[in-house]
Amino acid sequence: MKEDVENLTRQIDELSARLREAIGRSSEQMNNAPYQPKAHPKLATTSAAPPAAKNTPYRQKIEKLSGEVVDSNPYSRLMALQRMGIVKDYEKIRKKTVAVVGVGGVGSVVAEMLTRCGIGKLILFDYDKVEIANMNRLFYQPNQAGLSKVEAARDTLVHVNPDVQIEVHNFNITTMDNFITFIDRLRHGSLSNSKIDLVLSCVDNFEARMAVNMACNEENQIWMESGVSENAVSGHIQFIEPGKTACFACVPPLVVASNIDERTLKREGVCAASLPTTMAVVAGFLVMNTLKFLLNFGEVSHYVGYNALLDFFPRESIKPNPSCDDDHCKLRQREYQERIANEPVEIDFGPDLDEPEVLHEENEWGIELVDESAPAPPKVESSSGVAQGLKFAYDPVSKTPEEEDLSPAQAAANDLMQSIKEKLVEEASQQKK
Amino acid sequence: MKEDVENLTRQIDELSARLREAIGRSSEQMNNAPYQPKAHPKLATTSAAPPAAKNTPYRQKIEKLSGEVVDSNPYSRLMALQRMGIVKDYEKIRKKTVAVVGVGGVGSVVAEMLTRCGIGKLILFDYDKVEIANMNRLFYQPNQAGLSKVEAARDTLVHVNPDVQIEVHNFNITTMDNFITFIDRLRHGSLSNSKIDLVLSCVDNFEARMAVNMACNEENQIWMESGVSENAVSGHIQFIEPGKTACFACVPPLVVASNIDERTLKREGVCAASLPTTMAVVAGFLVMNTLKFLLNFGEVSHYVGYNALLDFFPRESIKPNPSCDDDHCKLRQREYQERIANEPVEIDFGPDLDEPEVLHEENEWGIELVDESAPAPPKVESSSGVAQGLKFAYDPVSKTPEEEDLSPAQAAANDLMQSIKEKLVEEASQQKK
Repeated sequence: MKEDVENLTRQIDELSARLREAIGRSSEQMNNAPYQPKAHPKLATTSAAPPAAKNTPYRQKIEKLSGEVVDSNPYSRLMALQRMGIVKDYEKIRKKTVAVVGVGGVGSVVAEMLTRCGIGKLILFDYDKVEIANMNRLFYQPNQAGLSKVEAARDTLVHVNPDVQIEVHNFNITTMDNFITFIDRLRHGSLSNSKIDLVLSCVDNFEARMAVNMACNEENQIWMESGVSENAVSGHIQFIEPGKTACFACVPPLVVASNIDERTLKREGVCAASLPTTMAVVAGFLVMNTLKFLLNFGEVSHYVGYNALLDFFPRESIKPNPSCDDDHCKLRQREYQERIANEPVEIDFGPDLDEPEVLHEENEWGIELVDESAPAPPKVESSSGVAQGLKFAYDPVSKTPEEEDLSPAQAAANDLMQSIKEKLVEEASQQKK
Repeated sequence: MKEDVENLTRQIDELSARLREAIGRSSEQMNNAPYQPKAHPKLATTSAAPPAAKNTPYRQKIEKLSGEVVDSNPYSRLMALQRMGIVKDYEKIRKKTVAVVGVGGVGSVVAEMLTRCGIGKLILFDYDKVEIANMNRLFYQPNQAGLSKVEAARDTLVHVNPDVQIEVHNFNITTMDNFITFIDRLRHGSLSNSKIDLVLSCVDNFEARMAVNMACNEENQIWMESGVSENAVSGHIQFIEPGKTACFACVPPLVVASNIDERTLKREGVCAASLPTTMAVVAGFLVMNTLKFLLNFGEVSHYVGYNALLDFFPRESIKPNPSCDDDHCKLRQREYQERIANEPVEIDFGPDLDEPEVLHEENEWGIELVDESAPAPPKVESSSGVAQGLKFAYDPVSKTPEEEDLSPAQAAANDLMQSIKEKLVEEASQQKK
């Protein structure tokens, strides 16, 4: 009976892999047509600098980064990081691809920072439109109201730095087809059509975070999560390496203690508050952690909280939960345990991702390689074991949850996972016909 | 002999006050002509929202803030702070005036944040031009290269939020005439032509910081200092209330330990590095502290450091130095001691500034009211007494420095102070003729 279930699961995974490859191929063909940026409208009137014809970008693309200290070099202050010994090889950033899921108050600033830092490629996901109500945060401007956020973001970003390749997806990743496309872009979205380097989650809801988590566990994709509280005065970033750190489903997400009664926040008809300060700080932490990870300098943080009322910044590390509800998380945990058992020396943090191959490619569809002699998986931190000032956003999920115990958001996420599997099986069987 | 010196100093102060008033009046007349914003060029082409004729702002000014939760309300997410109990009266922000000195990597983002938060009035000071080499930081765009930073900033900010009054000064505050105009704007720059609420220093050099410090000590003006390191991976903010906290001249400025050899940073021909991440984080801390101070919520921080390599955030308070070289600092210290001696209960931090009258208006030109029975002034913290991870940017200034011991920057600041006094006496005596 247990074997049957495992067999079926493996088959579903195989089928979903094939289906994704098929969808991925057509998606690639779509994205191979290069984006033609509209000229930035500012060009037409306010430029006091060298003349630029309407409908052409402000400057030509730059083939190779230079550290030359001249006013006209957009990279001199970044290449100085190299000369000052902070970063060994800053130019490596041009080969990196980062996906940003959600380009609202945090994600849009994250995308702008990475663009100005000269990242190789950005893939932006959002289904929302710019509204005047968003003008209390950085990045979007009033005249962009009504445009889709990803299109508005691309228009600005290609103008700010034409060297960066921007791919946008104006959809909600939690619906079936979009989730499949999302996974395809993780697998084939890089500049060399291979696995991307990092996913940054800048979304504002539980379902979207669970979708990112599910995809990254399945794809063995390192990602970072971010969030700001509904009262606008706290936030956090979290680094998630499947199997090594807690995934988003392992333990409830940590929130910074806000001293605000939760009931106040949840009152009906009250919109969430937001501040450009908190969002820029969280975006700054997230992109700084991204640069440290991609360019291998400093210390990549696992969790940094920000309590703006007290200027309090808890740091934390959370081990994965051996009883996590996500089967792919448990698989990654076993893989990780096996790896460290074979390599007693701790694996370097912030690995070089120039060769973004998965370590056990032949095992990514559910085949277990776990060694019975491997050390016991690490214990998950208890809810009371987190750093001072931190608490979980809700009570930990019980290990064998009854359907009626699930929050609407958890149930929705579970439904999504289930319906994706069913749909994949159905579509795959139709393809075979 | 000592009395003579004190007498002369007092006379100089009186003369400088009169001179400033005279200059202030003409400056006010200049600034009374309302600014006519150019239409934001984006309007012409990318707007998919309600049509706006060329050369008109995107939206009309809003007379009264509303908390209504509709997409078209730019203040709904800010007014939610009030409904959530974070801020008692958010609308008070519309009466506040903040000066931002330096609108580069930190100051431009600070100005944008305050604009999006709906501050009443901003006064921007900078003498620099936008360069393509600045494009690795947020805010400015490539087509603005060559424009003065304050003009470029105003063009963007009036477009982002037409409710905010923006006054700009395209000059270096460390030259004589400009310093006098700077002081005048602190005294008369508010929306009601009275004292402004706060000065934010976002400059990148010692001389400008000393000039801000000198002006704020003289005017008894609360201000905040900010800075980022030359290697781009650390920064800080500091709250300075004359007489209560250390001023910028009391002790050497604190820097976050960077683990980088100073000699590496000072090598000739190496430009400073900068990152949009560090600068946005420092800007976020600074404006958050500003909001807490202006709107009286949370805990105003005296000093917050940011070490990006380790995500380490030292907090600190530094008492003023009774032997500070700045005479106005010492006067403010005596005033503060007298105040707390008369009011044994600690004065509230983050006072309500709706009535921005100085406490001892009749004394602001140097007349001492110090009570001989007042408690001894607090000791300055020793260099080894600062929080872990912090160190001073240079060795503390000796209490009676010999001219040859001064760094070029300190000497320049002293020269400035001296030449301003001389020039004031000279100009005032000419006025009398």
